[in-house]
Amino acid sequence: MADAQSNLPLNIMPLPARAERGDGSLNIDASFHLAFVGYREPRLERAGQRFLHQVRRQTGIVMFPASANTGAATLEVKTDHESKAIQDLGEDESYWLDVTPGGAKLHAASPLGVFRGLQTFLQLIAISPEGFSVPAAHIEDRPRFPWRGLMIDSGRHFIPVDVIKRNLDGMEAVKMNVFHWHLSDNQGFRTESRKFPKLHEQGSDGLYYTQDEIRDVVEYARDRGIRVVPEFDMPGHSTAWFAGYPELASGSGPYAVERKWGVFDPAMDPTDEKTYKFLNEFIGEMARLFPDQFFHIGGDEVSGKEWDANPKIQAFKKSHKLKDNAGLQAYFSGRLQELVAKHKKTPVGWDEVLVPGVPKTIVIQSWRGVDSLAAAAKDGYRGILSNGYYLDLGWSAARHYAMDPLGGPAAALTPEQKQLILGGESCIWSEYVSAENIDSRIWPRNAAIAERLWSPEGTSDLASMYQRMETESARLEWLGLTHLSYQRVMLQRIAGSWSPTEFDALRALAQALEHQKDYTREASAISPPTSLAPLNRLVDAVYPESDVSRRFALKADLFVGSSCQDRVLEAEIRMQLAEWVTIDERLQALAQRSLLVREAAPASAALSQAAKIAMSALDTIQKGVPLSADQKKLQLDSLGALEQQAHKSQLILPELPAFQKMVETASAGSVCAK
Amino acid sequence: MADAQSNLPLNIMPLPARAERGDGSLNIDASFHLAFVGYREPRLERAGQRFLHQVRRQTGIVMFPASANTGAATLEVKTDHESKAIQDLGEDESYWLDVTPGGAKLHAASPLGVFRGLQTFLQLIAISPEGFSVPAAHIEDRPRFPWRGLMIDSGRHFIPVDVIKRNLDGMEAVKMNVFHWHLSDNQGFRTESRKFPKLHEQGSDGLYYTQDEIRDVVEYARDRGIRVVPEFDMPGHSTAWFAGYPELASGSGPYAVERKWGVFDPAMDPTDEKTYKFLNEFIGEMARLFPDQFFHIGGDEVSGKEWDANPKIQAFKKSHKLKDNAGLQAYFSGRLQELVAKHKKTPVGWDEVLVPGVPKTIVIQSWRGVDSLAAAAKDGYRGILSNGYYLDLGWSAARHYAMDPLGGPAAALTPEQKQLILGGESCIWSEYVSAENIDSRIWPRNAAIAERLWSPEGTSDLASMYQRMETESARLEWLGLTHLSYQRVMLQRIAGSWSPTEFDALRALAQALEHQKDYTREASAISPPTSLAPLNRLVDAVYPESDVSRRFALKADLFVGSSCQDRVLEAEIRMQLAEWVTIDERLQALAQRSLLVREAAPASAALSQAAKIAMSALDTIQKGVPLSADQKKLQLDSLGALEQQAHKSQLILPELPAFQKMVETASAGSVCAK
Repeated sequence: MADAQSNLPLNIMPLPARAERGDGSLNIDASFHLAFVGYREPRLERAGQRFLHQVRRQTGIVMFPASANTGAATLEVKTDHESKAIQDLGEDESYWLDVTPGGAKLHAASPLGVFRGLQTFLQLIAISPEGFSVPAAHIEDRPRFPWRGLMIDSGRHFIPVDVIKRNLDGMEAVKMNVFHWHLSDNQGFRTESRKFPKLHEQGSDGLYYTQDEIRDVVEYARDRGIRVVPEFDMPGHSTAWFAGYPELASGSGPYAVERKWGVFDPAMDPTDEKTYKFLNEFIGEMARLFPDQFFHIGGDEVSGKEWDANPKIQAFKKSHKLKDNAGLQAYFSGRLQELVAKHKKTPVGWDEVLVPGVPKTIVIQSWRGVDSLAAAAKDGYRGILSNGYYLDLGWSAARHYAMDPLGGPAAALTPEQKQLILGGESCIWSEYVSAENIDSRIWPRNAAIAERLWSPEGTSDLASMYQRMETESARLEWLGLTHLSYQRVMLQRIAGSWSPTEFDALRALAQALEHQKDYTREASAISPPTSLAPLNRLVDAVYPESDVSRRFALKADLFVGSSCQDRVLEAEIRMQLAEWVTIDERLQALAQRSLLVREAAPASAALSQAAKIAMSALDTIQKGVPLSADQKKLQLDSLGALEQQAHKSQLILPELPAFQKMVETASAGSVCAK
Repeated sequence: MADAQSNLPLNIMPLPARAERGDGSLNIDASFHLAFVGYREPRLERAGQRFLHQVRRQTGIVMFPASANTGAATLEVKTDHESKAIQDLGEDESYWLDVTPGGAKLHAASPLGVFRGLQTFLQLIAISPEGFSVPAAHIEDRPRFPWRGLMIDSGRHFIPVDVIKRNLDGMEAVKMNVFHWHLSDNQGFRTESRKFPKLHEQGSDGLYYTQDEIRDVVEYARDRGIRVVPEFDMPGHSTAWFAGYPELASGSGPYAVERKWGVFDPAMDPTDEKTYKFLNEFIGEMARLFPDQFFHIGGDEVSGKEWDANPKIQAFKKSHKLKDNAGLQAYFSGRLQELVAKHKKTPVGWDEVLVPGVPKTIVIQSWRGVDSLAAAAKDGYRGILSNGYYLDLGWSAARHYAMDPLGGPAAALTPEQKQLILGGESCIWSEYVSAENIDSRIWPRNAAIAERLWSPEGTSDLASMYQRMETESARLEWLGLTHLSYQRVMLQRIAGSWSPTEFDALRALAQALEHQKDYTREASAISPPTSLAPLNRLVDAVYPESDVSRRFALKADLFVGSSCQDRVLEAEIRMQLAEWVTIDERLQALAQRSLLVREAAPASAALSQAAKIAMSALDTIQKGVPLSADQKKLQLDSLGALEQQAHKSQLILPELPAFQKMVETASAGSVCAK
């Protein structure tokens, strides 16, 4: 007999390849018993302990590490065989999971599939009228792409090990399998080098990972079925190397760790054999430290100015018949790839490295556009997509979700060429990201990208995605991620006040705003921001995608899309608008006391003013006398000006499109005027 | 020239012995430079790093570990000499702090005073119209009592090391200096013993501290100027010992770790020399593990039934002329104290150990009442007060704050006798406390107790205390404490829903309620709770003291205490009541879906009903036609019945007294009837 809830969708993210709901559900209580059968290894035991800990966190049910539970397993996990000693691209991650009211079975070829299946089981645990349970279901699951990564930039802002680890936990939860670690940039060299200690000593302000910490992170990732691909960006993005080793550079220096953001001129000297001798030893050391098969050499954004200014390099170009700096970079890139190959690694590079003649082994990471990915595949190169997955741009989850590694020009590739497209990687560049707010810049939107890379082609229901992403977002905090909880702490710093009325107004403001999108923050900065600037402002504390605003827009759409007669909906819209209208006034006193609140005052005033315009549009709709064209223009112009005003606080008002629709509806000829 | 803010009180908790505000303030920015002069040691350097980290967390200002800042120090810290190798009772913790717009100086005799003074400086950092700054001030500070402790019960529920550490951070912030670690009880033996491994192997369900972890905690505490006093409770409260070593017990067993709460019969056999041989070796091992001078031997709540039932023990009593079990316990206690003294430690015991003839070295911890503290002092015993400081009873901060170690009968002691009263200890017993909610059961109320023990006698302004405690509460989360952030996570588990409207209703309900006070939770339990029962219910998620309710009561007092004409106040009261009125309805659907919400339904209905009664009282006040005596009685009776109804969810409605006042005001003859 089917139970009442059996038609509800399964709350899994990423969606599995195939899932069917069964009848009834499996109770989860203190008698829960997990048993491993088949192939065993300590990593599976640890996964089991971690799983039980997570069940405990999700349910509050007491489960002792030294469990006395015996007898039939509630969840029996069968593993056929081991996975490779060093996790490899394309290893089998499939599993099936069968849940009945009497028990559950998880079956996978190797531990990798077990890790994936355990996460699915955890997502299925839910509170019910009888307590905690898992709905009966049969799931057969495997990933669409073998490379599903997250890149974290530890170069521009150092990201501590505990923050890295909790993000690895998050990656495991959404079945991502590659952690791409951007470990050096102009603003910091973050890896201890024992061969070249001045790299971290003089290139990091004391903020670097020891080799022990790196080994620990690699082990931690392996325990979760995640590969760690290190990146050392060369020949540009390398000022921090030159603080300790200026002889590697093409200019005469002196060099110091860069404090500003942007593209800078310092670049390695590709004409000096000393450079390759150094890199050979350095890559050798790092190749031993990072067991993964792949080794990222960067290769992006070389300005070429230091090369142009160095007569020796100009002479080298001439003597080697390199007609431009692209040719010189290709020469460097080729030499570098030889070194990587010599140390038994496969290189990965940003799409600039794709130039004629580059060896076919290199994996191309497309960031400047989708074209390079398809172009690379046509030429026989393997590639991964990051264009469209830059989390620091502040895009909505929906916008990231719409990007598909096999979409755009790649859709026209042959099946064989499509095979070369390995997957994708979300990237969080850390100009405006600190240990404090990084989780919020990654999560929950990264779950949408993870779903794009795991779930079957064509998975595209946005409402379902958002609903499951919200659920997953709350669950992720159980793993220790702070993408929701960070905000109160930051807002308390900004307010410097513990008056609940003031604080509530500030929170309501923060939750209605988003930070500026793409790379527009610099343009509105009062002074050029640097790595020394505190990330303590409202722009640093707001969510990249405002749930409050998204929900408001859905309601506004529903309202103007209907006959505008829904009184409950109207009341909800009015209540939200009424709150926004009052915010600016409620923050006046606080803005007098706190510099950080005062900096947000333009945005606060803009929100309140814009909400008044929307409120007045609602009144007009209700009265049934449409706005004149002049009135409409005036209102829309005002909204536009308010948008600009918010930019003074480096913020945007994501509800403006909804407000505009309301004004348009209030004007003549709109769909729902009475 | 005095600046505009110079009359504001300094936001320090505990209040210093003496503080004067000066003119202007000291800016805190990236050029901040901390310098140590005078006596130096690694512990001071670590304190400096921790301090800078904390400045960074509080302000968001970038401060690199490898600071390049040189020149004149922003804060110069001068230390005269070292403190003792093992921190001792009564060491000098005084300091003075002088802040001017040009710089700050902190001066202390030893590192202990430096730790205290750095915390004061951190509390002074505040956001201002110009950015972050510290007001100019001169502070001279020293503690009132030398023993200012927090006891954590790791026996009944295991509390992980990271939770212990963040609570040590909290203790440091409020200048507490003794961590009393209750390490064994009927429900668990939590310390690794290498001499007697079955203690932790069979007495802990796998949940115990390794000796390395304990050494780490002791070091961590020492770095913060906190002593660690271990407690092994004997001869009762010791069932968990007998799981591995039944031969220590007075009964015939078999014994297993106790699952229930309460006072149990198993007790050590005080008549068998084997017991003392065992304890001698055990205490020797623990005395080496815990360097502190003091060693707590428990001694509370011995039922005596196992002794009565054992003929051998009865015979021993007779042959040794011990007329009752109290005499037998005194004999045991005497023997135990000899062993403690043999291992060069000073014993501490719960007040039951205070019997005629007990050696004067023992320190008496008064828990059953204040009388024993004064009585002990009169007899020449040193004592510490815990009665009135039991955090698990759920009292308000105000109620704890009113307890004074030198109040009550102790006020009548001679100055010399008063010297014997060393201070006090707050205690958190863990029947209903887990790693998840323990912070909320300790903080922020523990800050009020810390102030009582540090600040000068007579410090008693409740409004000031609450205002500073709220500020401190927010700051404590910067240390990693979770006493505010835990709640959302627990409520999300209870709701199992991420609908913001449902969730907001549940949160509003949670924040209006408190758990039942004192030890009344058992009485209303459906089945006797045990250590296996999940602590995942609304009663486990609510704050012990509701800020929302406290603020409402202040407003209601103000309103009925005035002429009831304040329309703004009335509107605020109405808005709050209106929210409470709707909660029950808003939670109906959720209660159908979640067992844990349904369990809270009686409380939710009671709150909404009670708020309706208060709302109707307001209407009556507004109309000016007083309630009849019958009507009044009916309303008050209804409120009383609703209070009882809330108990079904093991919760209380802390706003009921305010509601009652409103009903009384609405009735004839009240102060503000028109």
